[in-house]
Amino acid sequence: MSDQPHRIDTVRPLRASEVTQWDFEADVVVAGFGIAGVCASIEAARAGAKVLILERTGGWGGAAALAGGFVYLGGGTPLQKALGFDDTPENMAAFLTAALGPGVDEAKINDYCAGSVEHYNWLVECGVPFKESFWGEPGWEPPHDEGLMYSGGENSAPFLDVADPAPRGHVPELAGKKIGERSGGYMLMKPLADTVAELGIDVEYDTRIRRLVVDDEDRVVGVLATTYGKPVTVRAARGVVLATGSFAYDTEMIERYTPRLSGRPGAAIEEHDGIGIRLAQALGAELAHMDASEVAIFGDPQMMARGILVNGRGQRYVTEDTYPGRIGQATLLQNDNQAFLIIDETSLEEALATESATPFFRFQPKWVAETVAELEAEMGLPAQTLQTTVATYNQHAEHGTDPVLGKKPEWVRPIKGALACFDLRGLTAGFTLGGLRTDLDSRVLHVNGEPIEGLFAAGRCTSGLCAYGYVSGASLGDGSFYGRRAGKAAAAG
Amino acid sequence: MSDQPHRIDTVRPLRASEVTQWDFEADVVVAGFGIAGVCASIEAARAGAKVLILERTGGWGGAAALAGGFVYLGGGTPLQKALGFDDTPENMAAFLTAALGPGVDEAKINDYCAGSVEHYNWLVECGVPFKESFWGEPGWEPPHDEGLMYSGGENSAPFLDVADPAPRGHVPELAGKKIGERSGGYMLMKPLADTVAELGIDVEYDTRIRRLVVDDEDRVVGVLATTYGKPVTVRAARGVVLATGSFAYDTEMIERYTPRLSGRPGAAIEEHDGIGIRLAQALGAELAHMDASEVAIFGDPQMMARGILVNGRGQRYVTEDTYPGRIGQATLLQNDNQAFLIIDETSLEEALATESATPFFRFQPKWVAETVAELEAEMGLPAQTLQTTVATYNQHAEHGTDPVLGKKPEWVRPIKGALACFDLRGLTAGFTLGGLRTDLDSRVLHVNGEPIEGLFAAGRCTSGLCAYGYVSGASLGDGSFYGRRAGKAAAAG
Repeated sequence: MSDQPHRIDTVRPLRASEVTQWDFEADVVVAGFGIAGVCASIEAARAGAKVLILERTGGWGGAAALAGGFVYLGGGTPLQKALGFDDTPENMAAFLTAALGPGVDEAKINDYCAGSVEHYNWLVECGVPFKESFWGEPGWEPPHDEGLMYSGGENSAPFLDVADPAPRGHVPELAGKKIGERSGGYMLMKPLADTVAELGIDVEYDTRIRRLVVDDEDRVVGVLATTYGKPVTVRAARGVVLATGSFAYDTEMIERYTPRLSGRPGAAIEEHDGIGIRLAQALGAELAHMDASEVAIFGDPQMMARGILVNGRGQRYVTEDTYPGRIGQATLLQNDNQAFLIIDETSLEEALATESATPFFRFQPKWVAETVAELEAEMGLPAQTLQTTVATYNQHAEHGTDPVLGKKPEWVRPIKGALACFDLRGLTAGFTLGGLRTDLDSRVLHVNGEPIEGLFAAGRCTSGLCAYGYVSGASLGDGSFYGRRAGKAAAAG
Repeated sequence: MSDQPHRIDTVRPLRASEVTQWDFEADVVVAGFGIAGVCASIEAARAGAKVLILERTGGWGGAAALAGGFVYLGGGTPLQKALGFDDTPENMAAFLTAALGPGVDEAKINDYCAGSVEHYNWLVECGVPFKESFWGEPGWEPPHDEGLMYSGGENSAPFLDVADPAPRGHVPELAGKKIGERSGGYMLMKPLADTVAELGIDVEYDTRIRRLVVDDEDRVVGVLATTYGKPVTVRAARGVVLATGSFAYDTEMIERYTPRLSGRPGAAIEEHDGIGIRLAQALGAELAHMDASEVAIFGDPQMMARGILVNGRGQRYVTEDTYPGRIGQATLLQNDNQAFLIIDETSLEEALATESATPFFRFQPKWVAETVAELEAEMGLPAQTLQTTVATYNQHAEHGTDPVLGKKPEWVRPIKGALACFDLRGLTAGFTLGGLRTDLDSRVLHVNGEPIEGLFAAGRCTSGLCAYGYVSGASLGDGSFYGRRAGKAAAAG
């Protein structure tokens, strides 16, 4: 441990000339042992680099190990084929361009889709297990250990008409998984962390990156970190990979960039304080889509598909059988976080008889009523707002259609009899999608357009695949895919 | 003119040690002769600094001289008082915090409101004329030379209940102003440009900023510019003020930060390419609210207030008598740019009999119909969508109320008889509100939190007052107010 008096209360780079002693030395230094960091480390080590992972917490995993585990893969993976689904890279790219836009990095989407089958195989070779089993019900994730599921609204309006639907949410199999317990993300990280161990890659836990170290030409040549509060200097002969996650837990950055997420971080970990983004910004790094956010909503998809969702004016506003993250975004970002799920007794009973991956979603309704008029009044909605919404829905539902929002016929049925209304206001949460702009080799781009020498990044500290939309599996997907690229590119120096 | 071979195809800073000859020298160098630049220059010169303005075009004015001319001022300005309106800084701040949020810089809002009366007096002392006349009709701007108008929805839902309504859109008087001709912005800029001339401030026109020059401690000490394609070096002994406007015309930045504005820049000038933002980013400057945008919609406010606006599902979504910029944002950002104005013949004739500041808005309806059912079918809307919207609106309108969206009783009337529908899709346009994060002295803040030495900024290259909402006059308001601050702070070194 160094006794050098380097300041740690700044994100400005430290000059290498000021470093008189390196406490650690490696070819490639990876900050963060989540999904992006683990993949970067494996590829860098396999390319012959001496790798050192710096992890802020006491163990591997990051947000990934706590996630549901979807990896968004397609274009004809062996799992898709085994389960009878056709897909092509072009079809996948057409869907992602529509679903993740506007403003997507098209080159990155095409690149990602073209490499998706190879990436699936690479994960499998690393030991990540995918069970040949498809879950076709509405939900945030499969309730058991099924390996494949729709995870982005591919088979719902409006994307049905954009690209041939194919499920692309690949979930690592956790044998004996029980509902509500540890999920697929663990079984994504576990084999990869094991691979890191097998490769003999060094890891320093409880070690937190604080500053980048640059030489006189502003090339990144190391990092200043702290371990148990003390500074340590780490030399990176070939490159530094930032894999430090999102900024969902940095209050100031949230206010500055994504204030609608203020107070509702979700599917992130408290270490996600944006440090990687800020360190690179101090070197002139360009950003992208800093206000974009994933938004989860804690309504039960089995219920939502069978009911209708209305906003604060009693109007329907989103296809209820689509990917629930799309419902979350529409609610928080376009409807002032006002969402009410209305479902009749028959449909509610049917929904409750199904399996749900998330029993937590099955809370009590806020209102129950015998008629729509009564519910409308109880909710405090102006007369004839909810009543006309339901009447119009029912009129078309009698014919099995939903021309207003395009819900699939299988979920369309008239709302009749006693009603329940679930108050979903305040049940949105999410994480940030914006971050560093990187190229296809995961090199961090300067605002001037060219790469910052010696600096690479992947995962949610980068803008990655996503612009404003989201699909489950995009983060573990681009984090793992471009994590590998970062490791390869960094190892190449 | 310098023959030094400095590169101009990069936004990276130039080291002062590489500058062997300064073509120009001043204490304070101001880049941009729009509203922020002119105010900065005046205050810097009055503080005793030798000032040099570099202006990219052949004349003063920037986007400001082409603007409607609203300056958002209040808290009890002499004009407000003379016209009988009560206001306080606290009341103004409460409104702006609600209307410009979420995510506003509260310190800046409070500071701006506290200084607003003084700022009004300063503008008047510089020769900016405000006529003691109030325009109370719906509109984007007054049709004549009226000096005061509501310009942010202060007297409409939902802000009616947030703060006591007061009009704060102060418009410089252009004597003999005719509808559709040169507007108030010119008469804001003209006296200020005259003041610059009276103060003997140097201006170099056709001179475009390319790079910042920094010393070995990264303090900004000058700029590299080009004039007629040739590089010129400009020394700034005390500071550089960036007043280069928005990035509304930079295609790449728009895709990266505000893709919904892609292809629809408005109320900006082609020189607004984000150069000031990028030059500062290269020094590690922090940004804020980069995706925020003003959105105009080219519907006639006189018609909109009297009719109803529906989205692509035939649903009302915004109070029709509010500030039209709020309508524009709700349309583009929350309703997929789908907006249809429906108005009956009686109300349309009434609207057309009023004065409108913008005759251009009075185009032909896309559809006319004898009944709502007929219009619904012609528009291709699902059966009973528009019909129920109108029926519900009418049911309440019979009692003079609009409980759904809170339109004021004076504009609420049942829609009856023959109908016209104006297609407003594709009639949105706007400019970017995001930019550099600055402190109350207009110092550009580094991502680390402290100021970048020698660098100041104001106007639309900064995030300024606005987060996600907008009010007309906010840009000329914060540009002039924080332009002055920038000039004072730069002159102080």
